[in-house]
Amino acid sequence: MLSVPEARARILALLQPTGGEIVALTEAAGRVLAAPVVSRLTQPPHDVSAMDGFALRAADAVVGARLRVIGAAPAGHPFAGPVGPGEAVRLFTGSVVPDGTDCIIVQEDTACDNDIVTLHETGHPGKHIRGKGLDFAAGDTLLDARRLLTARDIGLAAASNHPWLTVHRKPVVAVLATGDEIAMPGEAIPAGGIISSNSHALAAFIRACGAIPTLLPVAPDDRIAIGAAAEAASQADLLITTGGASVGAHDLVQAGLGDRGFDVDFWKIAMRPGKPLMFGRLGTLPVLGLPGNPVSALVSAVLFGKPAIERLCGLAAGAPQTEPARCTVALAANDHRADHLRATLARGADGFWEVTPFGPQDSSMLRRLALADALLLRAPDAPAEKAGAMVPVLRLADCGM
Amino acid sequence: MLSVPEARARILALLQPTGGEIVALTEAAGRVLAAPVVSRLTQPPHDVSAMDGFALRAADAVVGARLRVIGAAPAGHPFAGPVGPGEAVRLFTGSVVPDGTDCIIVQEDTACDNDIVTLHETGHPGKHIRGKGLDFAAGDTLLDARRLLTARDIGLAAASNHPWLTVHRKPVVAVLATGDEIAMPGEAIPAGGIISSNSHALAAFIRACGAIPTLLPVAPDDRIAIGAAAEAASQADLLITTGGASVGAHDLVQAGLGDRGFDVDFWKIAMRPGKPLMFGRLGTLPVLGLPGNPVSALVSAVLFGKPAIERLCGLAAGAPQTEPARCTVALAANDHRADHLRATLARGADGFWEVTPFGPQDSSMLRRLALADALLLRAPDAPAEKAGAMVPVLRLADCGM
Repeated sequence: MLSVPEARARILALLQPTGGEIVALTEAAGRVLAAPVVSRLTQPPHDVSAMDGFALRAADAVVGARLRVIGAAPAGHPFAGPVGPGEAVRLFTGSVVPDGTDCIIVQEDTACDNDIVTLHETGHPGKHIRGKGLDFAAGDTLLDARRLLTARDIGLAAASNHPWLTVHRKPVVAVLATGDEIAMPGEAIPAGGIISSNSHALAAFIRACGAIPTLLPVAPDDRIAIGAAAEAASQADLLITTGGASVGAHDLVQAGLGDRGFDVDFWKIAMRPGKPLMFGRLGTLPVLGLPGNPVSALVSAVLFGKPAIERLCGLAAGAPQTEPARCTVALAANDHRADHLRATLARGADGFWEVTPFGPQDSSMLRRLALADALLLRAPDAPAEKAGAMVPVLRLADCGM
Repeated sequence: MLSVPEARARILALLQPTGGEIVALTEAAGRVLAAPVVSRLTQPPHDVSAMDGFALRAADAVVGARLRVIGAAPAGHPFAGPVGPGEAVRLFTGSVVPDGTDCIIVQEDTACDNDIVTLHETGHPGKHIRGKGLDFAAGDTLLDARRLLTARDIGLAAASNHPWLTVHRKPVVAVLATGDEIAMPGEAIPAGGIISSNSHALAAFIRACGAIPTLLPVAPDDRIAIGAAAEAASQADLLITTGGASVGAHDLVQAGLGDRGFDVDFWKIAMRPGKPLMFGRLGTLPVLGLPGNPVSALVSAVLFGKPAIERLCGLAAGAPQTEPARCTVALAANDHRADHLRATLARGADGFWEVTPFGPQDSSMLRRLALADALLLRAPDAPAEKAGAMVPVLRLADCGM
């Protein structure tokens, strides 16, 4: 059996980021930069006032000084002329500091009577002035390629005068559910059948990971139909199948894809839930085959599908990031399979996470997975732990799940 | 001056969740349930096999027993007749357990020769059988109203046969930037002007918080124009203004909105960055006025805008959730204003966050905010801390920012 990290590394080794596309700044949040953002201007473009107040010469800034106010310069309306000794100009936050001045005295530290301002505070050169380029200068690389763009980044790209950004194209991820027993929600359920749930959960997960899901029509348990369905996904960047990756005679996904030249890697992963995993290429299309059990499918999607999609999106992809949490119950020693216990999280009095695994962990219990906050990770052969031990957890909401 | 929690409570007290709308299951991830999801079926709908193997009577399940295989029942193809003593039926994971059987012996623990299966393992009633309703039963409330729907929830709603869900309508949040000095990215920049950045960052933030942003045209520093622009937002659920909420003579937002009957609350908040905040109602439209400085605006958006949008979305809204982190540097005692230091986070060797605030914290430094991972929260009058102290941090990515 393969370990989880080995399987993940093999998957990632076969995937390449998508190419770039130009998107409007307003559409770029949550996308991954394919080219760095280099500033097109200097910010602030001039020395500007950090406060509402009066610009003057620091040499004049003594308590009790009375200066003549020769004008006002709201932000966006710079004062035209130079300012001489004994003179002051009314400024506002963001106003350009007029030529001849080098100091701002804030409004609250003055008294103003018609065109005479009396200072109640001293100053020094540069006081309350934001120097030209304090934030950034033209030519500075502000954001690196491969960065997932935040709302703040969008503000920064705007401020540096970029109406367009070059980002990785959103990968298209096709989802193929198989099984004679599968019905769509709201449609007639065949005898012994169940409703398709994996494909809908996977579609939402794929979108949350930054890709575009395509739900292929459910394929019956027929190798010809399965092969044809997979072939229809050839324009996708990744095909995820669910179901049909077990050892039964009716697990036809491998066979159906094999008929089309699928270069198959069928793995048993040393993990619980979700031992069987399939990975390979159908022509140039990478195919990730998840187990059919809902919990196994979705946990496998977090461990293998998320890094795969992140790699396609242009991100540095690897193991999902765990966090430490205090386990509220004792844990038995683990066997040789990495375990992923469905668990709830709560903040303890000291602010740290406290994690409590559910009792039964049957891989068919989707409701329990939905109500879980996290997976509690138990490494292969992890020793028993007493209640209160720190253990690694994976917050499902952080994983797009 | 108002404290941050007081101001937040006053804002939340004036906001109501939007009404419900029906959306397709495939569009419901990330939305907030306005009505509970009650299961329309029982899952599994019958006793089903948890493994690939043979269904038989537990009474026959002794090592060495040879049973006649009278049929096979793939998932979705239940076995029609009853199964008698000495008989077995080949099943697969998810297959309906046939009448007359109460035990599954897994395939690996058998040898099968034509229609005779020899058992290498004992069994007991219920072995490897998932009982009808193990996951959930018809009529169970699976997901409560006010829940933010995850990918797993979508799977659960699908499994319980819901093609449609009732969620809160996405609130529309209009954004009004004001200022003669503001240009849009790529357009001509006026003398002393800067590029609009707050409104673009806020739009991305609003979307990340689950609402629909509308960027109103930038209003010049003219009270008539500002009033008219705000009036145009009357169909929105919330109007966020940026700039114009300071004490200067050219801060005309209050005046412009006042002309239209704005019931204004202008607050100074005991916080840094971002002291000035405006809140009130223009008719029935709630208006949140953020400061003009980029960092002040975006930090205020996290502290006040996010809970406001969450309330509109139907979520239980309150203070953003902090996490504990070990501070890598000593911190000076704080004054009477709550401080929000821009900081980077890294995982320490023990898995806990380590937080390092930037040196200069000028509220005009947008680049530094973009490169920050978190805000380090310093309570009013917090004492000095030595390096290594645990402090609360707010991860910006968790706040839609």
